[in-house]
Amino acid sequence: MTNQNRLPVAIDAMGGDKAPAEIVAGAVRARDELGVSIVLVGRPEELGDTGGIEVIPASEVIAMDADPGKSVRTMKDSSLVRAAEAVRDGKACAMVSAGNTGATMASALLRMKRLPGVFRPAIATPIPCPGADLPTVLLDAGANAECSPEWLVQFAQMGAVYARHRYGLEAPRVGLLSIGEEPTKGSPLVKATHALLAEGAWAEVSGGVFVGNVEGRDIMSPDIDVVVTDGFTGNVVLKTLEGGMKALVNAILAAFATSEETKAAGEVLLPALFPLYGQLEPDNTGGAMLLGLNGPCIISHGSSSATAVVNAVRVAVEMVDVDLVGAIGKAIRPE
Amino acid sequence: MTNQNRLPVAIDAMGGDKAPAEIVAGAVRARDELGVSIVLVGRPEELGDTGGIEVIPASEVIAMDADPGKSVRTMKDSSLVRAAEAVRDGKACAMVSAGNTGATMASALLRMKRLPGVFRPAIATPIPCPGADLPTVLLDAGANAECSPEWLVQFAQMGAVYARHRYGLEAPRVGLLSIGEEPTKGSPLVKATHALLAEGAWAEVSGGVFVGNVEGRDIMSPDIDVVVTDGFTGNVVLKTLEGGMKALVNAILAAFATSEETKAAGEVLLPALFPLYGQLEPDNTGGAMLLGLNGPCIISHGSSSATAVVNAVRVAVEMVDVDLVGAIGKAIRPE
Repeated sequence: MTNQNRLPVAIDAMGGDKAPAEIVAGAVRARDELGVSIVLVGRPEELGDTGGIEVIPASEVIAMDADPGKSVRTMKDSSLVRAAEAVRDGKACAMVSAGNTGATMASALLRMKRLPGVFRPAIATPIPCPGADLPTVLLDAGANAECSPEWLVQFAQMGAVYARHRYGLEAPRVGLLSIGEEPTKGSPLVKATHALLAEGAWAEVSGGVFVGNVEGRDIMSPDIDVVVTDGFTGNVVLKTLEGGMKALVNAILAAFATSEETKAAGEVLLPALFPLYGQLEPDNTGGAMLLGLNGPCIISHGSSSATAVVNAVRVAVEMVDVDLVGAIGKAIRPE
Repeated sequence: MTNQNRLPVAIDAMGGDKAPAEIVAGAVRARDELGVSIVLVGRPEELGDTGGIEVIPASEVIAMDADPGKSVRTMKDSSLVRAAEAVRDGKACAMVSAGNTGATMASALLRMKRLPGVFRPAIATPIPCPGADLPTVLLDAGANAECSPEWLVQFAQMGAVYARHRYGLEAPRVGLLSIGEEPTKGSPLVKATHALLAEGAWAEVSGGVFVGNVEGRDIMSPDIDVVVTDGFTGNVVLKTLEGGMKALVNAILAAFATSEETKAAGEVLLPALFPLYGQLEPDNTGGAMLLGLNGPCIISHGSSSATAVVNAVRVAVEMVDVDLVGAIGKAIRPE
């Protein structure tokens, strides 16, 4: 993965429930294990030993529960704003943060700006399909609580480009999330979007194939590659699946612990269950990506460990090396 | 459960993927196992041996994929419309159908009518919380793709009354589904609804307690009793959980089958996992209930087996015996 010409990845050292210790540890591991150049952004005096990784100083920290718009406007020396500026100014190739999601989006949007023609950036989150090789890309997973049909069409384009470049799919199957397969089912937003997506013009440059409406049960299925929805529904879906998977896994583990006999049986099964556990573990997904901006921005989950940071960096450099930003730019505004 | 004064439960014999055979078998079992009086509605010549259960003849069948509004308006001798009429005309205490959900709602709405003051009926679906005793009631699970804040407030009232009467909860905790706990998070619909629910006047008669916004991850948690949302989001959530649980369970079973050793361990664990399996099996939930109408209507899932029909009848008579319809009527329009 070593690429001498690639700029360093800027990591917000102050963002996340386990910042800065786990974030710094992840940065060091990412450099050592992936051979990727890293720059940390934050309060130098709070970072401890960075193992020689350069630090871009930033004196302010946007709290996890701070108002995103207000904090980004007023805290110009925050680690998030400085990380986004590093990408804008050509000092970093991508930014990674496990901090306040809204503030990460706002920083990236205000400093990197949108790609020409992009109405709104969207959060693309890979949803693991248990037992299958590839995840389903869900977008928008929470950037825009309210959307227009035209925005959703762009999300379909950006999602298709993302699935092609990240997963090597020739013609990603793109579905519109609704409450029935028929084009007449759903909210007014969904019906209007369905009509636009069915026209097919959007797919020419982005390379996706519209398979029509899909339902909630299709999201974790290997039969669909990209699911498009508004940011309210997408965020509800994401968190519903997180909660549901966790509740079921905990209940299964409790069943394993009912007796000495079941405990022993559980230990036999653990190696067989381990790949599935690894697939569902949020630290392994590499985080979500903000699409539509003039630079890569990876949003890692708030409780990110060092491993999550390593995986986020891995995704960031993959996206840089295939020039995902350039590909999205061409799909949205063909030359 | 025998109640000599109770009217029979009307079961749509023609609705569902396994109709009429499984539906009739379920009707016979419900009568024999629960001691409940039943009346079947459908084409007598297609029902086979009903074990002496009376049949209300209906010559038409609304297909699972038929347009709900159109079919109910034009097929006045359909089993669904006749079942709803049986409740309206005092020949049955409740209706049960595993048929076309939209047509079931339309039949019930047109024939039974809304309770005075009810804006729109809502589908209340119990979501099992793995390992916990009581489910979370989700509404609206799909009756109204578009909602107003005032409708959602009534859903909160109806959901609270339902949770009190069905699960014996003194003061059900009611949450509004959003994408963040803060009142300022979410769509305009959610923000406006939050303000109305926070006023608290709605809770006085219905007995619920507003706990604020909840997120998708709270739905399968035992910390919340009722989750209120619009019918689009609710239906997406319901199907997302169905699909997610199924995908995870299948992947776990596949892991159990990897070797002779894991198969043997799996057999040891099955008895411990059986209660969890039973909790998540849709046939066991008794189906969803349409709230806000002047009569009980139970919507069983399309692939209902005889067991699902028995459980739907069980829920129907429980709701009749506690006069849920009367209680909702009083909560919506106190005297």
